[in-house]
Formats: sequence, structure tokens, C-alpha cells
Amino acid sequence: MGAVTGASTGTPSGAATADARAERLPKQDRSRATRQRLLEAAVACLAERGWAGSTVSVVAERAGVSRGAAQHHFRTREDLFTAAVEYVAEERSTALRALFPQGASGDRRAVVAALVDLYTGPLFRAALHLWVAASDEEQLRPRVTELEARVGRETHRIAVELLGADESRPGVRETVQGLLDMARGLGLANLLTDDTTRRARVVAQWADLLDTALA
Amino acid sequence: MGAVTGASTGTPSGAATADARAERLPKQDRSRATRQRLLEAAVACLAERGWAGSTVSVVAERAGVSRGAAQHHFRTREDLFTAAVEYVAEERSTALRALFPQGASGDRRAVVAALVDLYTGPLFRAALHLWVAASDEEQLRPRVTELEARVGRETHRIAVELLGADESRPGVRETVQGLLDMARGLGLANLLTDDTTRRARVVAQWADLLDTALA
Repeated sequence: MGAVTGASTGTPSGAATADARAERLPKQDRSRATRQRLLEAAVACLAERGWAGSTVSVVAERAGVSRGAAQHHFRTREDLFTAAVEYVAEERSTALRALFPQGASGDRRAVVAALVDLYTGPLFRAALHLWVAASDEEQLRPRVTELEARVGRETHRIAVELLGADESRPGVRETVQGLLDMARGLGLANLLTDDTTRRARVVAQWADLLDTALA
Repeated sequence: MGAVTGASTGTPSGAATADARAERLPKQDRSRATRQRLLEAAVACLAERGWAGSTVSVVAERAGVSRGAAQHHFRTREDLFTAAVEYVAEERSTALRALFPQGASGDRRAVVAALVDLYTGPLFRAALHLWVAASDEEQLRPRVTELEARVGRETHRIAVELLGADESRPGVRETVQGLLDMARGLGLANLLTDDTTRRARVVAQWADLLDTALA
């Protein structure tokens, strides 16, 4: 989960420290570090300002990178923001798998809570802004549709694995899909208010129902 | 469901017919008819163009009403669009109750499908645009937060009633809440692509799980 927390603290002073560190790295590593700073700044920007307030210039400034350097890495605004959401989604998937190194640990409630957590942080907020913008903007729509499908498939794969769900049994695939739809809906309910208390109760109850359904 | 379908067909020619009809009505009824046309046009506009493309002028033109008349009914842009989402949500609640006049009919799968349908039409799309805009705009946020809570409570009440759920039993309240969160997540999954086929399978499976949980 550190990746997302990090994304929301890409302050200019943080960027300056990163620059100093980057100077000691070989050129290729420096380029990769710059790219990563841009991606994390882009997600934080999208989460805080929405699509309308998110431009390559704003992200470059936030990441402490020149506009030219940003455009060297990402030719268009669409390139930058879809790459950013994908990058942070991958970081989160890795972090989620790392939370349960033995795979399905038997504690389904903990797994359900961790899956739901995927949808309540700055990454979900950023992705939501991108989705909603894509529903109105023709040049963004196919890119985001494809990205959403790819990230969705990967999240489903992780959920099946961590829940120890046997998808060869009828209904199990749809049970896991419905759980992820519920997680997405819980993320939406958290957009304007802090829904933590209600969410914890819903997660506890549905983790029990899921446990019975998957047994 | 007619209310929402109607909202998306507020074309100028439809508005002209409505004008002719309105002229035969007493003044108070005419004023009410104008207000209703504005509300339906506002929801359709929000669903199609998003918050950034939705102004009082655009809605007035779509409803075939002068800008002055629109401002007589709604002092601000925020007034118009929050009233519009609330009005259409109420129309949908009424239509939903009318679908199951005997209340809990025993056919929980049909009730679950109808509840999920609340989140897949133009109303949900409009509400989503308003929510996401409210997360960035300070003058919109408290209004939309309050509206969302009110509409959410009413939807929960209808769901409990139609599902014949006994909320005095532990866990039942959270079971119904989780179902509505899932419905919201399914609405989000339908934003960029037609998710009808997958959704039908998820709804069938979760209606079965819910039936067991509420039995």
C-alpha cells in the first residue's frame, strides 16, 4: 500500500531530495526514476484535482521535472495518465500479494478487507476521475476501457488466489466478481464522506456470507 | 422506469409539444410542468455531457424554456442539478415500488435485478458526474453529500421492504447495505462498456446467496 501513500506526498521538497539521489545513479536508472516520479505525481494530481485540473505541466511541476523531460517520457496527456493509473494499480497488486505470502491463509475476512481497501484510497479516486472523464471524451475512452479490463482481470485473478476460490465449481466465478463489484461500490460510497465505520460492518457480514458460499 | 427514459428524450421537438400542451393548463400547473421539464433536461444533460458541460443555459435550451424562466425556478446551477437528481431519484423509487405492488413477492431475484437496474441508467450516470464533481468543488460538496445520504436512506428502505428483510435479526441490515453497494459497483462497471451479460450472471448468483442469507 506504500506505493499509493507515496503517490500523494510528491511534494516539491520530496522531489528535490529525489533529484539529489538520482544524480548518483547511471543514466538509465535516472530515467526510470524520473518516469516513476511522474507516474506517482500524475495519480496524486488526478485524485486531488480531477481530470479537468490534471495537465502534463501540473504533473511535471509536482514531480520536479521539466515539461520537456515529461514530454520525452509521455507524448500525450492521455499517455501519461493511463500509464500512471496502470503503474499504481500494479504496485498495489504486488503489495496485496505481499500481504498474504502464503496465498489463501484461511482468514477470508482479512482478504476481503484488503481487497476492499484497494478501492478506498487515492488510486481508486484517480481511476474514478479517469473513468468518468473517459465516458465523455472520445480520445480517452478506448484507452481507459482497455486499461480497466486489464486491471480488472488482474484483480480478479488475485482475489481468486487469495480467497482460495475454486472457479471450476458453478457460481464461484460470479461470487468473486460480485464481491469485487461490491468493493467498487464501497469505494464510491467513500468518495464524499468517511464511510469507514459502516464499511467495516458490511465487510464483516459479507466476508461471513462469502465464507459459507465458498466452503 | 419511464421517468428516466423520458429524461433522456427531452429533445426540442418534444419540448415544443409540451409547450402546446402547457398552454391549455392553469398558470400554477404550467409552472409545475416547466419545472419538471427543466429537471428532466438537467439529468439528461448531466448524464451526457458531465458537470463541466452542464450549465443552466444548456438545460434551458434543451427544455425549450427561456434562461430567465429557468432562473426563476432555480437560482443557481447547484440548485438546478441537485434538485434534478433528487427529483428523478424519487420518480424511480415510485416506479420501483409500483413494479412490486404486493411488496415482498417472494421472487427475490426479480427484486435484486430491479434494484441493480436503478444504478445502470442515465440517472446513475448523472448522479455519478455530480458526485465526482462534488469531490473537487467546495460549493457543491455539502449539498451533494446531503442529497446522497437522503436518496441512499430511501433506497435502503425500499430494498428492505421489497426483499422482505427482517432488520431486527443481526447482520440483515449489513446484508442489504452490501447488496446496494454491489449494485452501485455494477453501475460503475457499466459506465464505459455494455456490461449486461456479465451483470445478469452476477445478479443471479448473488440473488441466490442473498436468499440463503435472508431465509
